[in-house]
Amino acid sequence: MCPSKVADGEQRGWIIPIGGAEDKLQRRRILKRFVQLCGGRDARIAIIPTASRLSDTGSRYVDLFERLESGPSSIVDIQTREDGEREDYLDMLANATGIFFTGGNQLRISTIIGGTSAAKLIRLRNAAGIPVAGTSAGASILSEHMIAFGKEGSSPRAGSVRLAPGLGLTNRFIIDQHFRQRDRLGRLVAALAFNPFAIGIGLDEDTAAFIGPDNTLEVEGSGALTVVDASELQFSSMADAGQTKPVCLLGLKVHILVEGATFNLHTRKASPGTLMTERDPA
Amino acid sequence: MCPSKVADGEQRGWIIPIGGAEDKLQRRRILKRFVQLCGGRDARIAIIPTASRLSDTGSRYVDLFERLESGPSSIVDIQTREDGEREDYLDMLANATGIFFTGGNQLRISTIIGGTSAAKLIRLRNAAGIPVAGTSAGASILSEHMIAFGKEGSSPRAGSVRLAPGLGLTNRFIIDQHFRQRDRLGRLVAALAFNPFAIGIGLDEDTAAFIGPDNTLEVEGSGALTVVDASELQFSSMADAGQTKPVCLLGLKVHILVEGATFNLHTRKASPGTLMTERDPA
Repeated sequence: MCPSKVADGEQRGWIIPIGGAEDKLQRRRILKRFVQLCGGRDARIAIIPTASRLSDTGSRYVDLFERLESGPSSIVDIQTREDGEREDYLDMLANATGIFFTGGNQLRISTIIGGTSAAKLIRLRNAAGIPVAGTSAGASILSEHMIAFGKEGSSPRAGSVRLAPGLGLTNRFIIDQHFRQRDRLGRLVAALAFNPFAIGIGLDEDTAAFIGPDNTLEVEGSGALTVVDASELQFSSMADAGQTKPVCLLGLKVHILVEGATFNLHTRKASPGTLMTERDPA
Repeated sequence: MCPSKVADGEQRGWIIPIGGAEDKLQRRRILKRFVQLCGGRDARIAIIPTASRLSDTGSRYVDLFERLESGPSSIVDIQTREDGEREDYLDMLANATGIFFTGGNQLRISTIIGGTSAAKLIRLRNAAGIPVAGTSAGASILSEHMIAFGKEGSSPRAGSVRLAPGLGLTNRFIIDQHFRQRDRLGRLVAALAFNPFAIGIGLDEDTAAFIGPDNTLEVEGSGALTVVDASELQFSSMADAGQTKPVCLLGLKVHILVEGATFNLHTRKASPGTLMTERDPA
């Protein structure tokens, strides 16, 4: 489940986790920027509504992208593992200029699509330069290590979070979504404490991380993106704390980013980005 | 509202903010340790129930301390600003070996006791070596800058928190309580962003910071204590973000401490404390 290899001279496509409840009626900054990255009027977006149990989730996004003047979208309606091998669906993915995962339950995506030809093709297409976005559950699934579910609103405890393998477009971060709205800092920090190599990204609703081919993340949307960097952790009691006791973690670095700010997933450096230039127009 | 000066050769008394809902029936680690610091069987604790609107709050703590085998407690029942000048109450405070603020609403304490002789005497007594503890609202009031109220459960916004002058036993930290239970990280971070000199201390329920005369804080209780250190902040958009937009804050340091761990408010160094020695008994 490692990311597919990017060919020499090529660039990986954008990876765009969205915190859920993205603006669909007003400014629509996130969806608009995604459509642009997919080619604007030439965009052919493949929508994967597998996470959702609602029958109209796919067609809802077809409408949304159409109103943003994208080219024609298609619904890759994978509902069973057999669907993940269907030729017509694989064709849609092969011809898409962008791939979008809707919200719902991320375990539906991992259990139904994980290990199928569709999953492999999505990784290949992203490695070949195609943007892949996902909202809510669709955001969680993008990385190699995914928060399957967990307890909200508490200090970090080993028992408060359960990880599962995700789609593996990247292994640099662990995503959580509806972040402040559902008070998920504790479970994200717990997820990182298992192995602090990854970077935690907590996405508020209507907030997205646009992660470019150079592994620089830019924030888009009305909320905040919380970066938790545990790489300089000086102490962790995770191995001894048991399932239910809070974990002692010393030396976490936290950045709260808003629209315009950036974070480099490689160097782990945060920057105010355009916030700084907006401030000093002179 | 600065802390009273500690006389040469003397030591300031312990300052003990408690996150609320401290265990009153089982292990009672926090209240027990407080009673010990006040002198155990020789303790004469002055209980200040001003924050509470319930008439039995004071007598409830008299019972609790008695069951922990302290000496006799007294209730300093300040309900009006005139009460803050009453000789009998000032005598109780002058003779106490420990002072305890109950929970309720911290604005009741600051508006009723702030600026009275009682407030001044409490600072003097603490500077002379007497421990002062407070739970919930009683914890918030202890520092010079107090969170009066604020919005819970969101990313930091300037409008999400309102500061007021507290009792001023210390100016090193800003306290928030019921921390994870009421999702108050956002507002604590916002409070720090106004002026990052202070250290943010978020106390879970049944969790206390025992802050010694040397300004080293030790955690006691079943939850976690979240330290937010904004002193190395590399960027803040606080001044430009307005009241309602989330604030961009880059370079926060966060430590999650549990029972046994320590943090030095002077050097800003966190340590696993006894957690480390418990782990390696050999």
